[in-house]
Amino acid sequence: MKSEKNKLPSLNTCLSPSLLHLYDVNRSIVVIIDVLRATSTIATALYNGAKSIIPVDSVAECIKLGKQMDVITAGERDGKIADGLKYGNTPLHYTREFIKGKTLVLTTTNGTRLLHMALAEGALGVITGSFCNLSAVCHYLETQNKNVILACAAWKDRVNIEDTLFAGAVISKIKKSFQQNCDASQIAETLYLEAKNDLFGFMKNKKASHYMRLMGYGLEADIRYCLTADNANALVVYESGRLFLH
Amino acid sequence: MKSEKNKLPSLNTCLSPSLLHLYDVNRSIVVIIDVLRATSTIATALYNGAKSIIPVDSVAECIKLGKQMDVITAGERDGKIADGLKYGNTPLHYTREFIKGKTLVLTTTNGTRLLHMALAEGALGVITGSFCNLSAVCHYLETQNKNVILACAAWKDRVNIEDTLFAGAVISKIKKSFQQNCDASQIAETLYLEAKNDLFGFMKNKKASHYMRLMGYGLEADIRYCLTADNANALVVYESGRLFLH
Repeated sequence: MKSEKNKLPSLNTCLSPSLLHLYDVNRSIVVIIDVLRATSTIATALYNGAKSIIPVDSVAECIKLGKQMDVITAGERDGKIADGLKYGNTPLHYTREFIKGKTLVLTTTNGTRLLHMALAEGALGVITGSFCNLSAVCHYLETQNKNVILACAAWKDRVNIEDTLFAGAVISKIKKSFQQNCDASQIAETLYLEAKNDLFGFMKNKKASHYMRLMGYGLEADIRYCLTADNANALVVYESGRLFLH
Repeated sequence: MKSEKNKLPSLNTCLSPSLLHLYDVNRSIVVIIDVLRATSTIATALYNGAKSIIPVDSVAECIKLGKQMDVITAGERDGKIADGLKYGNTPLHYTREFIKGKTLVLTTTNGTRLLHMALAEGALGVITGSFCNLSAVCHYLETQNKNVILACAAWKDRVNIEDTLFAGAVISKIKKSFQQNCDASQIAETLYLEAKNDLFGFMKNKKASHYMRLMGYGLEADIRYCLTADNANALVVYESGRLFLH
């Protein structure tokens, strides 16, 4: 029998925040996945030199912090910059010229809520993941020797394709370093392997619900950017209320 | 603009009972899916002539009904016939010789709980689905012109491969009769299309958690039976506390 010491850590995929309670959050690193577009924007802004990002779950909180601190406030509702905020949730906007040295207060719905849930459950660590920083996420998880939960932000708790695809991408790259006993991980990896040669085309063919929504807002460039691997390849960790580069 | 009248009904997939609250249960027919093995056993017993099946969620309730009525009591816990019951949850056991004309009281955990949840939420109708009665389920859903929720019983709320595969099989056959705006359905169909030529081999290769569990109990024949299409091809409906052939 293998000793506990030699046992590989576990790797689980949680397809919706509504399922998070099923997993041992307090014995795991949790990867928050909100590919379209929160965690892509977060990786991009930090990669391009933002000092830190404060994720908040309401426009009101974002406005409040904007009045108290020297920060950039950003967030969208229904595809438009939310009333009272200055900037949107388009990762392409967060260039080095714009964001370097600044602090960003970003309001998102699905991603921020899940992040706060993971903290409330006592996660060992919280990082954010997106195709933009896929390799950095994989490298980090492989070197920690800790249990991992790939936590999809989904859309109002409904399972979505893009977050599942990202979970599958991570699994396909690091599964050898983990023991796996998680059907959701197998489903995610199968989906990713089917889609990986053309993620955008897959989202289009499957009429992924958030693809349709963002295309309706004219945001094709955002979708393409968010499905591209390693275009902002830095590790993002959450500590004391803020997201930082590791 | 299409009139409401001409609009196709919706087809959604709910991958876990923990997600059922996200769907319009009270405007839908709900298909309860518990491939390994509850809904396969149910289809088989009714197909082979059982008068009706009373699904109950505890061994105690099963024993109680067994004392009050002239019925067969059945159910397993941890792969063995539960203490106090007479028979197990192996569909292969429910031959015509054994079950014809009899009433079966069956205790299952995941499937029965989901069925009661769907009723509590006011489902328009409740039927059970498994590969054993795949065609009957598809034919029925196609002729009702009502919204459908394919509801996977999962395993203690964790998404599982086999129930997702069955949802995908249904979707691949009837999607043209429905409007679809459900990423979970797309994920299920993609999984099924990848697996369909060898469902057993797929479950084995992916080390599906319930495959591993049942193989550990020596139940390979059960798994193979439950993954075979239309071997008990009759429609099962739930009405007034019992499951009947339609």
